[in-house]
Amino acid sequence: MRMVDLIEKKRDGKILTKDEIQYFIRGVSNGSIPDYQTSAFLMTVLFQGMNEEETSFLTDAMEHSGETINLSKIQGATVDKHSTGGVGDKTSLALGPLVASCGAKLAKMSGRGLGHTGGTLDKLESIPGFKIQLSIDDFIHQVNEIGLAIVGQTKEVDPADKKLYALRDVTGTVESIPLIASSIMSKKLAAGADTILLDVKVGAGAFMKTKKSAQELAHLMVKIGKHLNRDTRAILTGMEEPLGYAVGNALEVKEAIDELNGHGPKDFHELILKAGSIMLCQAKIAKTEEEGERKIQEAIDNRKGLEKLKEMVIKQGGDVSYIENPCKFPISSLIIPVYAEKDGYVHHIDSLAIGLTAMRLGAGRATMQDEIDHSSGIVLAKKVGDFVQKGDVLCTLYTNKEDIGRAKDDASDAFLIKKEKIAAPSILLDYIR
Amino acid sequence: MRMVDLIEKKRDGKILTKDEIQYFIRGVSNGSIPDYQTSAFLMTVLFQGMNEEETSFLTDAMEHSGETINLSKIQGATVDKHSTGGVGDKTSLALGPLVASCGAKLAKMSGRGLGHTGGTLDKLESIPGFKIQLSIDDFIHQVNEIGLAIVGQTKEVDPADKKLYALRDVTGTVESIPLIASSIMSKKLAAGADTILLDVKVGAGAFMKTKKSAQELAHLMVKIGKHLNRDTRAILTGMEEPLGYAVGNALEVKEAIDELNGHGPKDFHELILKAGSIMLCQAKIAKTEEEGERKIQEAIDNRKGLEKLKEMVIKQGGDVSYIENPCKFPISSLIIPVYAEKDGYVHHIDSLAIGLTAMRLGAGRATMQDEIDHSSGIVLAKKVGDFVQKGDVLCTLYTNKEDIGRAKDDASDAFLIKKEKIAAPSILLDYIR
Repeated sequence: MRMVDLIEKKRDGKILTKDEIQYFIRGVSNGSIPDYQTSAFLMTVLFQGMNEEETSFLTDAMEHSGETINLSKIQGATVDKHSTGGVGDKTSLALGPLVASCGAKLAKMSGRGLGHTGGTLDKLESIPGFKIQLSIDDFIHQVNEIGLAIVGQTKEVDPADKKLYALRDVTGTVESIPLIASSIMSKKLAAGADTILLDVKVGAGAFMKTKKSAQELAHLMVKIGKHLNRDTRAILTGMEEPLGYAVGNALEVKEAIDELNGHGPKDFHELILKAGSIMLCQAKIAKTEEEGERKIQEAIDNRKGLEKLKEMVIKQGGDVSYIENPCKFPISSLIIPVYAEKDGYVHHIDSLAIGLTAMRLGAGRATMQDEIDHSSGIVLAKKVGDFVQKGDVLCTLYTNKEDIGRAKDDASDAFLIKKEKIAAPSILLDYIR
Repeated sequence: MRMVDLIEKKRDGKILTKDEIQYFIRGVSNGSIPDYQTSAFLMTVLFQGMNEEETSFLTDAMEHSGETINLSKIQGATVDKHSTGGVGDKTSLALGPLVASCGAKLAKMSGRGLGHTGGTLDKLESIPGFKIQLSIDDFIHQVNEIGLAIVGQTKEVDPADKKLYALRDVTGTVESIPLIASSIMSKKLAAGADTILLDVKVGAGAFMKTKKSAQELAHLMVKIGKHLNRDTRAILTGMEEPLGYAVGNALEVKEAIDELNGHGPKDFHELILKAGSIMLCQAKIAKTEEEGERKIQEAIDNRKGLEKLKEMVIKQGGDVSYIENPCKFPISSLIIPVYAEKDGYVHHIDSLAIGLTAMRLGAGRATMQDEIDHSSGIVLAKKVGDFVQKGDVLCTLYTNKEDIGRAKDDASDAFLIKKEKIAAPSILLDYIR
C-alpha cells in the first residue's frame, strides 16, 4: 500500500477501506508516513468528507494508536461527558459531583485549555494543593471509593490524535467534521467509560458556528459511538453568550460552588439539570429524564453534590476550606467595571471576544508555556434579555496586569445592545440520541 | 503573513494577492515554509483552482525563484517550443534544425525523461560524443553562430518548480491545471526566449486525457504568456497513438533524420509543418502560416534542415557520420516481431502501454538512477486507419534484455483492431493563440 494512492483515492471522492485507514493511522503513529503526505490527505478529507463507516474506522484506529484505559475494575456504570468547548464552561466542576452523588461513576480524564480561558484542569488547580496527576491505579481506586475523579490525560492515550491535531492546526484542516468527530470520539473511547454524553456548543463563539453544522457533528459522533458499542448521546447548547456569569479559573470554580449551593445562574442550572438527567439515564440510575432531573435537583437541595466535590478535593490533596468558604480564593489586585454607553436590551454577548479578553487579562494561555493567573477573568453583570440603562455595569474585569490595553473597549464592544425587547434564550437547542 | 492563513483563504475559495503568492514561493524556495504546509496548500489549489491572474503571479514568482537566462545577446528573434510529453515525440530533433535553417534562433534547454521513453537529451545522447552540458556563454555563442543549440537545464533555473514538482508527485496534486500551467510556463519564461510554442498532447496516453482539459490548460498558458509579455501560442495534438513509428532513443533519432531527408511518417510531417510555420510566424520570418509551411517544406526538400542538424552535432562534439549514415547506429541484439491475431482495421494504439513497454525493454527510466539503453524500443508497423491481416507484423520490439516478461503481449494488447473501417486521424486538434 502506498500513501499517495490513498490520497488520490480520497481526492477522487472514493471510499476508503478499514485496512487503508488503519495503514494511514499506523503510518502517522510510527512516523513512516511523512507529514507532507498526512497534511495533503487531511486536506482531501476536508474537501471530500468521509462517510459514517470511514469515520468509525478512523476513530477506532486512532483510539487504538496508544493506551486505552480499562475501567472494568470500577463497580457500576461509568459515565463520561465531553464539551466541544465554550466560554465560561465550568459544567464538569458541578455536574461531576452531582451525578457521582447520585451513584454514577465518573472517571474523567481532562485536558488543559489553549486560547480563551483555561480547561477543567486549570480551573481545579485554582484550589490550593489540588493534584491532577494520579497513577491509573490510584485513579480507579478513587472512583471505586467515592465515585469521582478528574485527572490529567496521560501522554500515552491516543498519540495519533495528538500528531494529527498539531498538523491540522497549522494546515487549515481543523474545520472538517469527520476529523473533529474522530478526534473527540477516539479520545473519549480510549478513556474507557461505558457511556458518553457530548455537549456540542453552537454559536459565533463556538467551534460550530451554526446549528446545522453542530447537528451534523453530533449525529456523526453518536453514530460512531453506536458503531463502536458505547451508549453515546449529544446535546446541542447555545454559545451566543458565555455560560453563566463567570469567565476565568477561580471565578468559575466559585460559580460552580454557587450551583452546588443552589444558587447558580439560570442558564448554567438548566444545563446541569438536562445533562445530569441524561447521564443518570445512561447509567440506568434513572428510568426517565424527569426522574433524573428530580434526583439532580435533590442532590443540589440536600448539598450531596457539594459534599461529593469536597470529598474529591480532599482525596486529590486540595484545601477543602476553599470549597467551604469560597471567599478564601484570592481576588485580583485590579477590579475594573465596564459601563453601558446606552439604554436598551442585551441581544448578544460575543463569547469569543469575552474569552479572548479574559485570556489577555491573565485567565488563559496564548502558548503552552504561558502561566495562568487563576484570579483573573471577567464576571458578567448582564445576560442576553436583560435591560440596561446607560451607566449600568455590563461586566467587571479582574486582573493583576497594570497594562490591560484595549480590554475595557473590547469587553464593552462584546455586548450588542438594541432598543427592541428580547427574551432570554433557552440554552438547550437539541438532544440527539 | 502566516502560511496557515493563506491555506485557509484558498481553502475558503478566495483569491490570493500577488504579495501572498510571492510570500509562498519565497518560503518554498528558502525552506521557511515546511513541506506539510506546502502540500496542504497545493491540495487546496487542486480543489479550489486559481484564476488567470493568480496563476500568472505564481508563474512569475516561480520564474524568478532562481536564475533566468538572458538571451538578449542573441541577434534576431529567439523562439522556443515545449511539448507536454508524448510517446515517440522526437519533434525537437527535426523541428529545431528546420526553423533554425530558416533564420529563427532556437536556444533550447531541455530535460531528461522519467517514465516512458527518454527525453530529448537522452535521444541526442544516442549520437556518440554529443555533449549536452554547455556553459551559458558557449550556449549563447553557438546560437549566435549557427542559430541552434539544445542543452541540459542548469540546476539553478526555477528551483521552486523542482521543489513543488517533487512534492506534487507524492501528494496527489499533479493533476491541477493551474499548477501544471505555472510549472511549464515558469520554466519556459526563465529560459528566456522571445516566443513560446506549446504542444499540448491529448489522449489516453497523454497527461491531458480529454480535449476539453487540454484546451483549458492551453488557454491558461497562452494567457499567462501574454500577461507576462511573451508571444505564446499553443497547438493541441492527438496522442491516441504514438507519434510516427519509432519509440526509443536511437530509433527516434533515425526517424527524425528520415523526416529531414523528406521521408518522415505522415503524422510527424504534418506536425512539423504546422509547428514550424507557427514558429516562423512568431519569429516574423513568415507573414502567414502558408508562407511558413512553404519555407519549412523547402528546408526539408533542399536538405538545409539536415545540414543544420549536422552543424549542431559537430558543434556539440557529436560524431556527424551517424547523421550522414544512420545505419551506423547500433542495433539491439534481439529483434522480436509482434503479429496480429485477427483481421481488421487499427482503431487505437495505446500510447501509454507502448511507452511503458519500450521503457521495460530498456528505452526509459523507472527511476533517475536507471541507465538508458539507446538502441532499444519499439517500431510500429501499423498506424491507426491501417488494415491488418492475421499474421501481419503490428510492431517490432528492439531490446538487449533476455527476459522481456510480458512485453510481447503488452505490445499486442496495445492495438485495438476492429472490423469497421476507420480513417487515419488528423494529428492537429486545435490551435490557440
